[in-house]
Amino acid sequence: MPHISDKGLSIAPSPIRKLVPYAEQAKKRGVRVYHLNIGQPDIETPQVAINAVRNIQEKVFAYTHSAGMESYRRKLAEYYRRTGIDVGYDEIIVTDGGSEALQMAMTVCLDTGDEILTPEPYYANYNGFAAEAGVRILPVRSHIGNDFALPPVADFEKALTPRTKAILICNPNNPTGYLYNREELEAIAQIVRRHDLFLICDEVYREFCYDGAVHHSSMNLAGIEQNVVMCDSVSKRYSMCGVRLGCIITRNREIYDGAMRMAQARLSPPLLAQIAAEAAVDAPASYFEAVNTEYRSRRDCLVSRLNEIEGVYCPNPRGAFYVTVKLPVDDADTFARWMLESFSHNGATVMIAPASGFYSDPATGRHEARMAYVLNREDLSAAADCLAEALRQYPGRL
Amino acid sequence: MPHISDKGLSIAPSPIRKLVPYAEQAKKRGVRVYHLNIGQPDIETPQVAINAVRNIQEKVFAYTHSAGMESYRRKLAEYYRRTGIDVGYDEIIVTDGGSEALQMAMTVCLDTGDEILTPEPYYANYNGFAAEAGVRILPVRSHIGNDFALPPVADFEKALTPRTKAILICNPNNPTGYLYNREELEAIAQIVRRHDLFLICDEVYREFCYDGAVHHSSMNLAGIEQNVVMCDSVSKRYSMCGVRLGCIITRNREIYDGAMRMAQARLSPPLLAQIAAEAAVDAPASYFEAVNTEYRSRRDCLVSRLNEIEGVYCPNPRGAFYVTVKLPVDDADTFARWMLESFSHNGATVMIAPASGFYSDPATGRHEARMAYVLNREDLSAAADCLAEALRQYPGRL
Repeated sequence: MPHISDKGLSIAPSPIRKLVPYAEQAKKRGVRVYHLNIGQPDIETPQVAINAVRNIQEKVFAYTHSAGMESYRRKLAEYYRRTGIDVGYDEIIVTDGGSEALQMAMTVCLDTGDEILTPEPYYANYNGFAAEAGVRILPVRSHIGNDFALPPVADFEKALTPRTKAILICNPNNPTGYLYNREELEAIAQIVRRHDLFLICDEVYREFCYDGAVHHSSMNLAGIEQNVVMCDSVSKRYSMCGVRLGCIITRNREIYDGAMRMAQARLSPPLLAQIAAEAAVDAPASYFEAVNTEYRSRRDCLVSRLNEIEGVYCPNPRGAFYVTVKLPVDDADTFARWMLESFSHNGATVMIAPASGFYSDPATGRHEARMAYVLNREDLSAAADCLAEALRQYPGRL
Repeated sequence: MPHISDKGLSIAPSPIRKLVPYAEQAKKRGVRVYHLNIGQPDIETPQVAINAVRNIQEKVFAYTHSAGMESYRRKLAEYYRRTGIDVGYDEIIVTDGGSEALQMAMTVCLDTGDEILTPEPYYANYNGFAAEAGVRILPVRSHIGNDFALPPVADFEKALTPRTKAILICNPNNPTGYLYNREELEAIAQIVRRHDLFLICDEVYREFCYDGAVHHSSMNLAGIEQNVVMCDSVSKRYSMCGVRLGCIITRNREIYDGAMRMAQARLSPPLLAQIAAEAAVDAPASYFEAVNTEYRSRRDCLVSRLNEIEGVYCPNPRGAFYVTVKLPVDDADTFARWMLESFSHNGATVMIAPASGFYSDPATGRHEARMAYVLNREDLSAAADCLAEALRQYPGRL
């Protein structure tokens, strides 16, 4: 029997998956599990998008243009213009979720063995995409002590090697919720310019900014227009994670053409998803206002409840719908598993994402966990009760 | 400005794309273009699938299981059992089209620099997936002289090197329409077994077999159960190319787990597509009968019309909906472009796919072209008229 490749072996399993069997067992025992571990919102998809799907007239579900339907790309350009990003429809390639956009960016910009710098903690699936592309992620550590602000420029430059070809930023950040401000983005632009790097920017949480904070797009950084590749997705924007639709945007024709060749090889992004997303661009402003108000109140609820627990520290981030929290435990992996296996409070428990999966060295994250505030406040509050009680009972409490 | 990677540059452009601007110009001049170049059928998607989409009840278009919805995978297993392939739903991972299945197979089975043997001419996009995975395709030539039957075992063994890890077969074949018989598949199994290779089998045209011919699946080859990775798609089966849904199937847990890690990194296959495809599994047998009858009559029409043209040779293949045809021209690329740029007959012309794109050395295919019989007979007949006239007028006629 032949064995799979080293590359196949090097694709890291999703760090959350290993807890799934324990969550399933807990449910079998009749314990309710509050899922703070995942980014699947309960927010409804805009009605205009659902209606568009329910009203499809197509008799043949045919391939679309490899870059996506022109009507959808023009609509997307309209959306970006509205948010202050000036791109042409012919600078957009529609992708199978933000995931494919990231895969394209890594494959087109980097060769096997090249490196990408990214602040850590970082979205764990970047590891999978990097392994598939045969490239290495070099982390630059951010710290909960200053709420995961951008690491100093000097730290990036220290990490650079001759094989470093790109910086990857997620803004607002998953898993920390941190929203980079203009000065931080300018600092990144400065490194990019000085060392002639690509800047791959994952902006899928753009619409989720709170407390009046403004999102600054990588597409608006002056002087590095040819270096920037922006990866986006409709998953969170319109709470339609399941349609799997994103896009890659760049003003660099060489990158665009390379990504286009990848797009042509896989023929077409999904038709039904494009129909839904094209309609969603017309979702009323009130949709976003309601969603943002809801998330802000959830964040306020979770952050305040967590910070009431002795020994817990939770930053109050201004973006996305995640917090990365410091927990007074010996090991967040063990704690997370223990909550699912050996604990319940009022018939319920909590599933969290240990931060070990978001650091290149798992040990770095052993006292932290990511929590997503994608549940309603009542459930979030009950989940916080569980956590507080769990931290009282947990044998490995520090 | 940083430059894209060698890998990005090495992804070959789709061989058909370069003719697209000429086709567009022809249309602008008012010339009707019969598209024999593409595999987008005009056949209607089954009504049950369209209805399922029109009746969706979901309020949130959420992520599905990374391997695909369990209900859909169980339904798929049912479909495979019906076609004589015994697989469990937990041996299936639902993918973003057959394309992602092939990308997963190449990435999980092969390391950078490893090689895949495949009979040529072969589906041009294999080149793109191979470039992305950093692997090499080694062609083993099949010949129009014996209608593109499987090359002798000795030819495969001659092409083997220490870096060869897999054989890739498309059955029924795109671009030749050739359907491998049991003896040919046994011959492949023998090479696979003897040299401990993986067998990646692209069976997306399984349902398109004519003249009573039976499709033999790679999944039923005895003694190489642990070597086989089958890639499939609903695109052609239910004429729903645009939904982008395929699957990868293997009994080898190591490959399955590796592909599953890739599946988890990209989170989920598309939800709406799965809803459509799950319903399509219940399309009545009469749907397939009608479709196959239609294709067989189209094939008969195109093959007989082509063979009536002096100097043309067209095999009569028993699968898929393609023929690869020998043309009496100096260069099929030049001829194809000339038909779009400088020729029309009764106000129409034809777009064909020059076979140069289907051979590793483009020169090998310069007297051949692929034609898809995805138009109705009337249009096919008019297209054949155009071709006959074009071959009379073409200055580079041999």
